[in-house]
Amino acid sequence: MLKAQFGQPKRTLEAVSLCEEEGSRFPSANFWGSRAITGAIHQGDAETTKGFEGETMAEAMRAIGLDPTKIATAQRDDIESFIELHIEQGPVLEHADLPVAVVDAITGLRHYRVTLTGEQNHAGAFPMDLRRDPMAGFAEIASGVMNTVHRLGRPAVTTIGRVEANPNGAAVVPREVRFTIDVRHPNPAQGQDLYRLHEKLMCEVAERRGLTIEWDIGIEKAPCLSDPVLVSIFREAAVAQGVPTLTMASGAGHDTQQMARIAKTVMIFVRSKDGRSHTPEEFSSIPDIVVGIKVLAEGLYRLAY
Amino acid sequence: MLKAQFGQPKRTLEAVSLCEEEGSRFPSANFWGSRAITGAIHQGDAETTKGFEGETMAEAMRAIGLDPTKIATAQRDDIESFIELHIEQGPVLEHADLPVAVVDAITGLRHYRVTLTGEQNHAGAFPMDLRRDPMAGFAEIASGVMNTVHRLGRPAVTTIGRVEANPNGAAVVPREVRFTIDVRHPNPAQGQDLYRLHEKLMCEVAERRGLTIEWDIGIEKAPCLSDPVLVSIFREAAVAQGVPTLTMASGAGHDTQQMARIAKTVMIFVRSKDGRSHTPEEFSSIPDIVVGIKVLAEGLYRLAY
Repeated sequence: MLKAQFGQPKRTLEAVSLCEEEGSRFPSANFWGSRAITGAIHQGDAETTKGFEGETMAEAMRAIGLDPTKIATAQRDDIESFIELHIEQGPVLEHADLPVAVVDAITGLRHYRVTLTGEQNHAGAFPMDLRRDPMAGFAEIASGVMNTVHRLGRPAVTTIGRVEANPNGAAVVPREVRFTIDVRHPNPAQGQDLYRLHEKLMCEVAERRGLTIEWDIGIEKAPCLSDPVLVSIFREAAVAQGVPTLTMASGAGHDTQQMARIAKTVMIFVRSKDGRSHTPEEFSSIPDIVVGIKVLAEGLYRLAY
Repeated sequence: MLKAQFGQPKRTLEAVSLCEEEGSRFPSANFWGSRAITGAIHQGDAETTKGFEGETMAEAMRAIGLDPTKIATAQRDDIESFIELHIEQGPVLEHADLPVAVVDAITGLRHYRVTLTGEQNHAGAFPMDLRRDPMAGFAEIASGVMNTVHRLGRPAVTTIGRVEANPNGAAVVPREVRFTIDVRHPNPAQGQDLYRLHEKLMCEVAERRGLTIEWDIGIEKAPCLSDPVLVSIFREAAVAQGVPTLTMASGAGHDTQQMARIAKTVMIFVRSKDGRSHTPEEFSSIPDIVVGIKVLAEGLYRLAY
């Protein structure tokens, strides 16, 4: 469209659609397409990366006429800027009544896997005041970390999505409770402060309640900051197109995080209905998508013409 | 011993050891022995009650020369008092530094099976202030019900032993959290008050957080009060034997609850080491057991001579 309207650009524009960002067929393939471009796929990875059905990535490639030994040729070192247009996957734009956002950071995150251990006892014969109950400790920690981020306000988030009690019997004070804490913040320094706040709270609760607490960190990702110049260009592009926007962080991961190793990056978000994602109910309206494309096209024009 | 020392009693004394109070071989046999005596085993129950290995109670009886068709002959209607000597299975006596207790009630209990439903969302893309998170609701309810019983003090207890999140993913705000609440109180009126307090708290938290709450009641048992005259007799018996005691409620269930349908009842508890029970570490010392037998014998003497 740009070429038809404005002729040959001064700088090269390329479009790419990247495979296996989610690992939808190959669960461990995470960001396969963008990792190939950044040179992060190593020789032999295609033979060891297996799909849900057991087939290897190499087999799947050969089945459609691709040569897995040539993956390294996807690597690029000549990309200046990578712009990703994506649905928001959250409710922020809908609640702000805006169609489009410019993304100034992708959140950093840390996954804690926590084990809280107390003393398994009979639910009837053990008075409350003599218990060392890891479920009571878990409840206090869960409320505590969530209250902390509520008070910090957006964009800090903390989620406890997984919990398991042992032995998990209705009439038994549990011996241990295992749970995860997913903590995210797009600001590097504030994210570190948040991790420290949560850890301090966990230690304080465990010690006061006579519980043992242990954790390891399953996943840790530093925040990925957008290029400030690109953020400005796309905000101005939106103004030029008469599109009201907000600037926000992405709470989910994206290929842009991989591409940021070799290029300046920015993202454009389009409003999601009810913030739903990864479900058949995921929906963005055609008018909102059109507005997103307009902002993308105006920004690309400003970069390439 | 009583007969050797004091001759023939005026009233008949019988000793009985009852099978399958715990359902240790037949998981659904609960209180099999005492239920047989109270007439609560129905024709055919021995054919449908199965062991962990799949054998029926009837087969197990025939294998050792017992006739399952004669279970009904175990029924009795001529027992005036049933006295049960048992280990405490809790830490109350140990913490009070006493060897023996007289039990004035077996706790009433109610098991709630609760489902708290909110909205499943992405742990990164959904701001805290827009979530309807059943894990946050669960944590507040768990702390709330346990704090309530802490403030009421002994003998009220409340235990959350079982919890399950769905879908139970580290990076997902759960759709629902299912959990049990085990609530026990030996006083009938105070127990009902406690149930109401917990229910009010659950409803208030769920409504305020925009969560749906549903529960059913898996098990409900009314408190079983000991006969006050028997409690006095055994307290006096302990004094006569120079044994310091306390009077307490049992937080666990016992055959005495079944026998209370056809007889006046009381229990004597002997101190448990560390309150441990249902484990190889379960232990009561010989001196404590001797003291328990002395109180039992003195009480039986007062009842039968």
